[in-house]
Amino acid sequence: MRLLFLGDLVGRTGRQAAIEILPSLVEKHRLDFVIVNGENAAAGFGITEEILQDVLDAGADVVTTGNHVWDQRDTLVYIERQERLLRPVNFPSGAPGRGANLFTARNGAQVLVMNAMGRVFMDSLDDPFTAVDMVLESSPLGRVADAIVIDMHAEATSEKQAMAHFADGRASLVVGTHTHVPTADHQILPGGTAYMSDAGMCGDYDSVLGMEKDEPVSRFLRKIPSGRFTPAKGTATVCGVAVEIDDATGLALDIAPLRIGGHLSQALPPSWTQG
Amino acid sequence: MRLLFLGDLVGRTGRQAAIEILPSLVEKHRLDFVIVNGENAAAGFGITEEILQDVLDAGADVVTTGNHVWDQRDTLVYIERQERLLRPVNFPSGAPGRGANLFTARNGAQVLVMNAMGRVFMDSLDDPFTAVDMVLESSPLGRVADAIVIDMHAEATSEKQAMAHFADGRASLVVGTHTHVPTADHQILPGGTAYMSDAGMCGDYDSVLGMEKDEPVSRFLRKIPSGRFTPAKGTATVCGVAVEIDDATGLALDIAPLRIGGHLSQALPPSWTQG
Amino acid sequence: MRLLFLGDLVGRTGRQAAIEILPSLVEKHRLDFVIVNGENAAAGFGITEEILQDVLDAGADVVTTGNHVWDQRDTLVYIERQERLLRPVNFPSGAPGRGANLFTARNGAQVLVMNAMGRVFMDSLDDPFTAVDMVLESSPLGRVADAIVIDMHAEATSEKQAMAHFADGRASLVVGTHTHVPTADHQILPGGTAYMSDAGMCGDYDSVLGMEKDEPVSRFLRKIPSGRFTPAKGTATVCGVAVEIDDATGLALDIAPLRIGGHLSQALPPSWTQG
Amino acid sequence: MRLLFLGDLVGRTGRQAAIEILPSLVEKHRLDFVIVNGENAAAGFGITEEILQDVLDAGADVVTTGNHVWDQRDTLVYIERQERLLRPVNFPSGAPGRGANLFTARNGAQVLVMNAMGRVFMDSLDDPFTAVDMVLESSPLGRVADAIVIDMHAEATSEKQAMAHFADGRASLVVGTHTHVPTADHQILPGGTAYMSDAGMCGDYDSVLGMEKDEPVSRFLRKIPSGRFTPAKGTATVCGVAVEIDDATGLALDIAPLRIGGHLSQALPPSWTQG
Ligand SMILES: [Fe+2]
Ligand SMILES: [Fe+2]
Ligand SMILES: [Fe+2]
Ligand SMILES: [Fe+2]
Ligand SMILES: [Fe+2]
Ligand SMILES: [Fe+2]
Ligand SMILES: [Fe+2]
Ligand SMILES: [Fe+2]
Repeated sequence: MRLLFLGDLVGRTGRQAAIEILPSLVEKHRLDFVIVNGENAAAGFGITEEILQDVLDAGADVVTTGNHVWDQRDTLVYIERQERLLRPVNFPSGAPGRGANLFTARNGAQVLVMNAMGRVFMDSLDDPFTAVDMVLESSPLGRVADAIVIDMHAEATSEKQAMAHFADGRASLVVGTHTHVPTADHQILPGGTAYMSDAGMCGDYDSVLGMEKDEPVSRFLRKIPSGRFTPAKGTATVCGVAVEIDDATGLALDIAPLRIGGHLSQALPPSWTQG
Repeated sequence: MRLLFLGDLVGRTGRQAAIEILPSLVEKHRLDFVIVNGENAAAGFGITEEILQDVLDAGADVVTTGNHVWDQRDTLVYIERQERLLRPVNFPSGAPGRGANLFTARNGAQVLVMNAMGRVFMDSLDDPFTAVDMVLESSPLGRVADAIVIDMHAEATSEKQAMAHFADGRASLVVGTHTHVPTADHQILPGGTAYMSDAGMCGDYDSVLGMEKDEPVSRFLRKIPSGRFTPAKGTATVCGVAVEIDDATGLALDIAPLRIGGHLSQALPPSWTQG
Repeated sequence: MRLLFLGDLVGRTGRQAAIEILPSLVEKHRLDFVIVNGENAAAGFGITEEILQDVLDAGADVVTTGNHVWDQRDTLVYIERQERLLRPVNFPSGAPGRGANLFTARNGAQVLVMNAMGRVFMDSLDDPFTAVDMVLESSPLGRVADAIVIDMHAEATSEKQAMAHFADGRASLVVGTHTHVPTADHQILPGGTAYMSDAGMCGDYDSVLGMEKDEPVSRFLRKIPSGRFTPAKGTATVCGVAVEIDDATGLALDIAPLRIGGHLSQALPPSWTQG
Repeated sequence: MRLLFLGDLVGRTGRQAAIEILPSLVEKHRLDFVIVNGENAAAGFGITEEILQDVLDAGADVVTTGNHVWDQRDTLVYIERQERLLRPVNFPSGAPGRGANLFTARNGAQVLVMNAMGRVFMDSLDDPFTAVDMVLESSPLGRVADAIVIDMHAEATSEKQAMAHFADGRASLVVGTHTHVPTADHQILPGGTAYMSDAGMCGDYDSVLGMEKDEPVSRFLRKIPSGRFTPAKGTATVCGVAVEIDDATGLALDIAPLRIGGHLSQALPPSWTQG
């Protein structure tokens, strides 16, 4: 099966670019399943239910999040009824919403999606390794799930790589989010799990993390806030990663980056355009 | 002029791969100037004078470093006589060695190379923005220097991007190091400065940051050290970034990633192979 | 001379307790100089000009701050005309206001007060050691200043102690603030400088850092904000430290804690009540 | 019952001072139970089995630790046979040793001692609140345990205070360690639990955290290591906190600091000397 994962939507330019291009990507390239990280979709801070619906309507099957998940206060409420919105699985028990869920892909496959949050240089949630392990053990790849995707929302590449090796052979894809910069280290690990340290954001890359650059640069220089952070408004690059998953084993056959539009070098998965 | 920057050499496999390939790259692609980050060259921790010499002999014009610069205690002494070894420019005044220096490229151009270290999630050196600004103002691009390269050794992409915008139009290239993962966000900023968030390491990418994966994974799980961190021994990918610099202005004409060997997708700068 | 330093005023209960008791303390115990840290005076976040005036009217000669200095946006403006309000001296150059200033005590002595901010576990301002050193060297104790007080606003005791040893013999008092808990390690260091790691807050100690305890406890448990942080409203303990300074040398003759009211054990400097 | 808790033993001077004074304190003041934090007893880094035995022989009933627990590699082995040595209870499951244990005091009472480690500005162990809650619920005060003591080893006072309020009414004493500085905020909380943010270290207070001050001060100034951290050798202050516990309820009747010897102001619990 063919799966696409798009990184953090940042602001209007980022989410609009993703929403506009997703339908044609899904149709033209016969995508079986689409996951989008939406933690910065609402002006950089969280996601509203309306925006969530727009992203789902555009073709996303699941929206993952991260440290910004509760920035919009309503999310604490509406996440309970939105089964396709995930928050990090390693929040303390009792947190609203779900951190992992099983979904049916367009090809009928059962896809398990998990969102986990790292702890290095971030707030200390529960251990993401234990949390991921519990889900992987209770819904093993190839038996309960035909494909398993872990969005490892984390700052440190060490923790993302450790999670990938920890899940290697037990997941189809471990992909990082949060740094808002796409990495070029996509590979299939020895156990068959595809990995990429960060999917990058869908947003304007002439910016600081997708936000207007003046204020963040000024804060680094002056150490005094001059105003709010607001999303940059330039053309967005839609960034993500595509994986071909073996229907028999759930392991990865191919992984390739996707970068469309905006300031970055363009990339389409070669497997999409071959044949 | 044509410039190549290679990211952090990690351990024997990383430095050997770089040392073996550099002479042919320099010759075949007529590289005018080569910079290599060597902060992890000696078994992952710092760089010895002997290894430094090997890297220079292979064709590097300058070796930059970062937070690991003093891991080999001798470096505090030998850095004084090694003008081609840089430590972060924003160490408090009185630190041994240099943080910036002017070099003559093979084409006769004067190349100013600077090494700066970020402070987000890292030890607090002096302000890297002020330090870089002072050098840029005293040796302006196009007058004192024909090309200016800043190795921004930092954890957070926000700080790297802020530095890039801060130096945009005043440097040829701002390139990040330290995360040991190559990014795919290479671009030329509005002011003409080439930028890439991280050059990636030269090392084995079936690892955690170039180190054997078992110990770091175990520490994330158990929170107890079982042993030392040792460099992974698998085939290395040589990672870096190439820039074509306008001889007249010192600004960037082109930027492209380089990834050779090992587990990652391969990339050669298109401009090297065209014509 | 006799000097009193009061720690961070937290909210209404803390600032009211300090404002009410200061006039009688000044008069009854013939205090020559009073310094108050006011960074949390306005509902826990910064200080308004009106509150500043109230604190000065109550008998404070100087109000110091810390990381919360700019929480009230007006402070960026009014600090320019308020010579008795200090912000950390190690903000990058160009910051509004002053980090150090010379004042005349009731006994005619010239008192130099400095506010510095640590960098361990805090945002990276400029090096506080260099900043303090410059002031100490340009206004030496016993020549330009009859007394010198450094409010070292910092999280880590290591950094506070290092600052104290660094200034030992060159200042009358190095006192820490920011943890909102008074320490019992007051002593006179070998060089004659009085030291206490933290003056403690003026606030309600049945709280978390002076704030209503329910929300912070809930965040530690749930990792999700339920609401805002608001100052606790119970009876405040006025916490601080008193120093007797040698008029001839500017060094410390005696240091003792002060804790009045509220939930903590009560302490008055023995030297105040003897004779 | 009468209980004494001593803070982190730092190096030879700290542990010797504690070892020398403990027998006479136990006898003279009829102490029913003594707990000592020993995480820095072995030259500042961890504790050897031999030193542990010396501390127990001197009268300690339990030795707690913290982030330095595994600094001596043998501890991973010998902790299994040493029931009186505790490591933080919130290490991931499978860690060697115990984080909580029930002991019999000299008066026959059952004393539950727990060691927990904070996560703010520290490595992310499992949630200390959940871990403590589980122990408190399974061994409730007044039923399974006649007294319950929690050593909350943490950097941030916010986290220590939150733990105290969380356990208020369910424990006899919550006492912080790790900052190596005694606080003066000892109090009995509304629910009856005694609290003090930090017991302080047993060590030389003319130092940085009990270590020779030259090297740490130099590192703050130069940001380059010049050598190792070694314990200061001056006279130690034995620092701790004494609690009178209600035999009927297990709640606190009185809390008072203890500071004997060295550079700090001296303090003996008034209840020890009255009558
Ligand atoms: Fe994000
Ligand atoms: Fe994020
Ligand atoms: Fe590195
Ligand atoms: Fe580094
Ligand atoms: Fe404060
Ligand atoms: Fe503060
Ligand atoms: Fe300690
Ligand atoms: Fe500790």
